[in-house]
Amino acid sequence: MSSERLIYLALGGAGEIGMNAYVYGYGKPGKERLIVVDLGVAFPDMDSTPGVDLIIADIAWLEARRDRIDAIFITHAHEDHVGGVAHTYDRLRAPIYARKFTANIASRKMSEYNHPDDAVTVVQPWPQQITAGPFKVGFMPISHSIPEASAMIIDSPAGRVIHSGDFKVDLTPGVGEPFDAAAFEEVSKDGVKALVCDSTNVFSPHAGRSEATLSPAIEKLVSAAGGMVVATTFASNVARVKTLAVAGERAGRSIVLLGRAMKRMIEASLETGVLKDFPPTVSPEEARGIPRENLMLLVTGSQGERRAASGQLSRGKYQGIEMKEGDLFLFSSKTIPGNERGVISVINAFSEMGVDVVDDTEGKYHVSGHANRPDLETLHDIVKPQVLIPMHGEHRHLREHVKIADGKGIKGVLAVNGMMIDLSGNAPKVVEYIETGRTYLDGSVQVGALDGVVRDRIRMALNGHVTVTVIMDDEDEPLGDPWVDIMGLAETGSSGADLVDVIEADLGQWLGRAKPELLRDDKALNDGLRKIARQSAMNEIGKKPEVTVVVSRLS
Amino acid sequence: MSSERLIYLALGGAGEIGMNAYVYGYGKPGKERLIVVDLGVAFPDMDSTPGVDLIIADIAWLEARRDRIDAIFITHAHEDHVGGVAHTYDRLRAPIYARKFTANIASRKMSEYNHPDDAVTVVQPWPQQITAGPFKVGFMPISHSIPEASAMIIDSPAGRVIHSGDFKVDLTPGVGEPFDAAAFEEVSKDGVKALVCDSTNVFSPHAGRSEATLSPAIEKLVSAAGGMVVATTFASNVARVKTLAVAGERAGRSIVLLGRAMKRMIEASLETGVLKDFPPTVSPEEARGIPRENLMLLVTGSQGERRAASGQLSRGKYQGIEMKEGDLFLFSSKTIPGNERGVISVINAFSEMGVDVVDDTEGKYHVSGHANRPDLETLHDIVKPQVLIPMHGEHRHLREHVKIADGKGIKGVLAVNGMMIDLSGNAPKVVEYIETGRTYLDGSVQVGALDGVVRDRIRMALNGHVTVTVIMDDEDEPLGDPWVDIMGLAETGSSGADLVDVIEADLGQWLGRAKPELLRDDKALNDGLRKIARQSAMNEIGKKPEVTVVVSRLS
Repeated sequence: MSSERLIYLALGGAGEIGMNAYVYGYGKPGKERLIVVDLGVAFPDMDSTPGVDLIIADIAWLEARRDRIDAIFITHAHEDHVGGVAHTYDRLRAPIYARKFTANIASRKMSEYNHPDDAVTVVQPWPQQITAGPFKVGFMPISHSIPEASAMIIDSPAGRVIHSGDFKVDLTPGVGEPFDAAAFEEVSKDGVKALVCDSTNVFSPHAGRSEATLSPAIEKLVSAAGGMVVATTFASNVARVKTLAVAGERAGRSIVLLGRAMKRMIEASLETGVLKDFPPTVSPEEARGIPRENLMLLVTGSQGERRAASGQLSRGKYQGIEMKEGDLFLFSSKTIPGNERGVISVINAFSEMGVDVVDDTEGKYHVSGHANRPDLETLHDIVKPQVLIPMHGEHRHLREHVKIADGKGIKGVLAVNGMMIDLSGNAPKVVEYIETGRTYLDGSVQVGALDGVVRDRIRMALNGHVTVTVIMDDEDEPLGDPWVDIMGLAETGSSGADLVDVIEADLGQWLGRAKPELLRDDKALNDGLRKIARQSAMNEIGKKPEVTVVVSRLS
Repeated sequence: MSSERLIYLALGGAGEIGMNAYVYGYGKPGKERLIVVDLGVAFPDMDSTPGVDLIIADIAWLEARRDRIDAIFITHAHEDHVGGVAHTYDRLRAPIYARKFTANIASRKMSEYNHPDDAVTVVQPWPQQITAGPFKVGFMPISHSIPEASAMIIDSPAGRVIHSGDFKVDLTPGVGEPFDAAAFEEVSKDGVKALVCDSTNVFSPHAGRSEATLSPAIEKLVSAAGGMVVATTFASNVARVKTLAVAGERAGRSIVLLGRAMKRMIEASLETGVLKDFPPTVSPEEARGIPRENLMLLVTGSQGERRAASGQLSRGKYQGIEMKEGDLFLFSSKTIPGNERGVISVINAFSEMGVDVVDDTEGKYHVSGHANRPDLETLHDIVKPQVLIPMHGEHRHLREHVKIADGKGIKGVLAVNGMMIDLSGNAPKVVEYIETGRTYLDGSVQVGALDGVVRDRIRMALNGHVTVTVIMDDEDEPLGDPWVDIMGLAETGSSGADLVDVIEADLGQWLGRAKPELLRDDKALNDGLRKIARQSAMNEIGKKPEVTVVVSRLS
């Protein structure tokens, strides 16, 4: 029926890498039944989100329509795809579907927040399909850097959409299913309305390498090592963890898993059967009785996180284990942009201990989990969609991906977060702009990115803080002198006197000259005191601090 | 005489990249006459130094011995070598020597701070030597990414030391002197006690490329461009700026310089004669009358700095010029680790405008200014020093460089900031550990890194801030209820009530139960209020804020 439509809407992940949250809808405009693909998180940083614990897509739009949501599908268990399920569950309350391994990880998150066990339903891979309102949705296995990653095959009355999820073209992924071109050909043979496609590595010009290509170099490195070997990678890259462990085992080393995520991921992999033949491991306690040249540690902290196992080892003992001169530390990972400082700091700390650090500068010990440009084109060519919508990328990635599509006769659509695309007709069109944004998990509460909470913290970090206290007597005259406290500011400035004394004197003078009307007017008094305090600090130390003014009236 | 010694001491730059400050001394122990090589700055970042303007080496050790300082030599005009001269001048008051271009830049800094014009003396290159106490010091031209970079030839009664400064082996540097192997052979032929050597690129395994190799690719890119071309690089890389300008000129484009540093560097280069034949430029005002396909802008901001020209262009008009769809933006630079987020944000902003951004991913448009491993070995092999002391590197770089030296029979010494090395005898030895550190230029004042000022700002950024105000009457009883203000914290938490109300209630209850002795004890009262406020916030929002407590006693 021409009055019904198929819509695509990214609430997160399109125009950024992280915080994936995509919505598909089918029905009459404004009455579409909805499904959600992925509910991920992004990670905070000191520059823009100091003190924040996690970043989640703003789901206000979805929440307002939650009676229309038929299902939430999670493509795979990376945090930027599954990390938001527990934090949004109360507000959405829709059934969650995932394959076994992903569901295992999702359920662990749900139970941490005391959500019901049965909120996550385990789904078999394609050809099983879940009926969700007008949609039928199947999980098509696709290779990535985590077990059981899946593309979504989304059927609607307006046609089939393939949502790639994160993927690479890997015929020998080690753990998990190889890329199956024939299967994608089969599901594409009757025509695909749209391919919504990972764009992460669109700027990488050469075909990607298989996970399996790493084993020889890793085994060579480990077998040549003299002291203890410690390797880190993304814990969720179970294939890599296995490759590392097997290299250790072959070199006659006992394997120790260190770090919460590392243990959790291996546990989930074994529980769900995606991982088999993992070498036996020993506990950190047992490891202490084994000569270091017979040990290999697999640890968390590939991004130089201070609290992860690698960070702790770089500063001293962790679980009774300590690194020493002659040991080897391997980063079997790449540094995500923005994490360089942390990684470099860990490397230098190891250098000071005399530990040799091998990183991935030469690409021998790590391969990406995302499709490079030629691999993206492989998928385009198999699926032959009418429309290509790039996702999972910053604006520059999406734009480049659109260019590639357009270059090969596929209609590319650059749709960033909030652009609702109608896919029903012959040409996709933008039908609405939805307000999207970010929600911060901050301690135990969620705050909006625009609430000003984090903005104020950034300002205090840049400018320092001054507290001004004034007591007004029952005749609205200052009782005694104003009182100043500083935090994060130099104690003395250009005059050589204490900064607090200088500000107090300037405030006192101003109060002494202030007219009675002003002294009675709370807002004018506050604004005046704030302005004088800032100006005074500026004169004295060259900084304009944030100011809290407290006027107490005894009247 | 055996009782005199030659010492080397890094106060900055050894164990980090940036903030270079090296000291050499000769004389009886504790009475050495001293010279300083370089007084640079490091740049702050939000993670560790929010709000800080510049980072300078702590020169307390030097200041306490300033009557023994005979001279300060500046190897070249990069900020990490010259940036600290004006900020330390009052405390050291030693004569500063530099070659013409470096002196021009140094003098501009001095006059900004109203220091005397004649504090910087212009020196001719080797074979001129400056006598500074027991030392004779010459400036040997060496190729780098800035004009007139020099190695220091430091002669003392205990022998010759060559301090490489920053360098690369470039036979065709475009602007400035080519690397002159014969000259280094000549100064090394009678034996060199120690080579103190740049280590920045020790992990780059292949020989470095010459500045001249870039012209063809840059000219090809610029001549093929359709719209306006905008290119950024480090302004001090005058050779690169010229290469870019010449490429623009050959493509029939008028050249515009945008950004303060860009104009200052070109001005200094022309004034001192190091730059000749620079294409004519037009002003931004004139540029507005020229078709965009005939314009090429050379702009500051290669590191994505918000306030630089590139950052401003990415957000809108700058000096009346605006970028548009079809324009080209070239990063003829590499991103210094830690600056990735800023650069990526500029790239995405341009992507949203439809501007094509070309960066240095493939290495076609930028070469490093530092010697790669084979080039370092070239210098080792020419100089053949008894001892190699790596500098200008993080610990990992110094350690690797020592390994290379040791591997070829040169005694490598891993000396980080603060390790005083005695070079007099046959074997170098550590004779003392000096306390070193960082000084922050923060607004208009200098604060010590350990003063806690920046630590408090970081804490406020991570945890937010609470102000607690209590008035005690003349009988040491609370007058009314405690008053709470918050900054950088969520307004409501788990209870749904206002956070300030919750904390005020908790504080009020605690005060109501407090014993009279406690209420009379300022410290106990402060500590108690702080603790309750933190605990209350923790319960309500899961964060423990920084707290300023103000107790006003009317008695």
